[in-house]
Amino acid sequence: MKKEKLTIIKVGGKIVEQEKSLNQLLKDFAEIPGLKMLVHGGGRSATALATRMGVETQMIDGRRVTDKEMLEIVTMVYGGLVNKKIVAGLQAIGIDALGLTGADLNAIRSERRPANPIDYGFVGDVKEVNAEMLASILSMQIVPVMAPLTHDGEGQMLNTNADTIAGETAKGLADKFDVTLIYCFEKKGVLRDENDDLSVIPSINKNDFAELVSTKIVSGGMIPKLTNAFEAIDKGVKEVIITQANDIQGLEGTRIH
Amino acid sequence: MKKEKLTIIKVGGKIVEQEKSLNQLLKDFAEIPGLKMLVHGGGRSATALATRMGVETQMIDGRRVTDKEMLEIVTMVYGGLVNKKIVAGLQAIGIDALGLTGADLNAIRSERRPANPIDYGFVGDVKEVNAEMLASILSMQIVPVMAPLTHDGEGQMLNTNADTIAGETAKGLADKFDVTLIYCFEKKGVLRDENDDLSVIPSINKNDFAELVSTKIVSGGMIPKLTNAFEAIDKGVKEVIITQANDIQGLEGTRIH
Repeated sequence: MKKEKLTIIKVGGKIVEQEKSLNQLLKDFAEIPGLKMLVHGGGRSATALATRMGVETQMIDGRRVTDKEMLEIVTMVYGGLVNKKIVAGLQAIGIDALGLTGADLNAIRSERRPANPIDYGFVGDVKEVNAEMLASILSMQIVPVMAPLTHDGEGQMLNTNADTIAGETAKGLADKFDVTLIYCFEKKGVLRDENDDLSVIPSINKNDFAELVSTKIVSGGMIPKLTNAFEAIDKGVKEVIITQANDIQGLEGTRIH
Repeated sequence: MKKEKLTIIKVGGKIVEQEKSLNQLLKDFAEIPGLKMLVHGGGRSATALATRMGVETQMIDGRRVTDKEMLEIVTMVYGGLVNKKIVAGLQAIGIDALGLTGADLNAIRSERRPANPIDYGFVGDVKEVNAEMLASILSMQIVPVMAPLTHDGEGQMLNTNADTIAGETAKGLADKFDVTLIYCFEKKGVLRDENDDLSVIPSINKNDFAELVSTKIVSGGMIPKLTNAFEAIDKGVKEVIITQANDIQGLEGTRIH
């Protein structure tokens, strides 16, 4: 049986935290045909609230250390402020959005990351995506808007990277849907020359990837991003696209396959 | 056709904001048979966050004035912090909870309250409860956990009194379900003598209410509470119970009918 198409879009905090870019994003998102889901970040707002509350933000390798107080902050900012702004904005343009954290509908269960070698605090590694429930919700033409928060099934909320939420959800739903996963980031795609925004590599397969790494065209933070993308492909996700937020239709950008 | 039983419980901030009383509440809530829904407050936490952020909390007649900044605070606290604590806590004891604001699933649409005679700011009066959608969700054995926030359908979140959310939802669902609405508050019920916690009036009908008001046994804030309760009864809600949070089975307290 032919599977229905599902597009999962991950957008970072920068886009959703500014009214103008958020409104444009929501309009573009509304035009994506078929079933869809949005996964958002919100780190900048979390850091801003923390600063205002006099709470220090500690990052290790670009990841937030989440003590009890920071967990409350991210739960408020991701699950409340940012999520509801998106949901209300989508409802206003006729999209029946539903804000979710991993605790809601037991959508994503995680496990607290071991304190060794680095104690990130209340940070969760995804254990299980509730694909049945998400599929039921999607089949009702509801559009899930996922905040980067999960729960451990024992009452504890956990902070979870939005890229990971998007990737794990895509993999979890790959059996049931024909999934396209689109990661929006600052650049137009994976660049051949990081100083030339027009040097987008249109398509990368595994062989290309090995070569791009060995020739150091791809390096740094892009390596784990692409590794995750190939992992999603291996788990049955149809395609992963890395592009800019103003291209969430995925017409340009870099196709991973 | 016999309608299915639905219990809607409204609990104030005090109960859900303290870990011990919250855990007890969730256990008691889990034991309520049949379909159920929880509506929560969170005003104390909102005020605490506001203070920490250096934002002044202004109340008029016990109602919060909600400017742009206070709206962000209540969206974070009600929709994020308090809601997710409850949802994760319910999931931990096997209840498939789903946190909702009025924007999610377009569950409750409201209209910004006119600035005259008092400008409460971003406060919404309920216009429409999406009974069809809530009934679909309930029929999936999902337990909605409603934060006291609504939206205007044009992208604006609005702060809305939790008692009102509970009452309007009960009325909106009265056609489809046999609804019991339980308001938890600090006392064991409506008291004949406010200094005697044991003087609970077990049952009040409209005639009793008129007499209780004329004899001044019922006065102050209890009058609008009971007026709302009778309005719910008039709109088809089967019974309204006013009781303490440790009696959410509604075995004691005051029955309004």
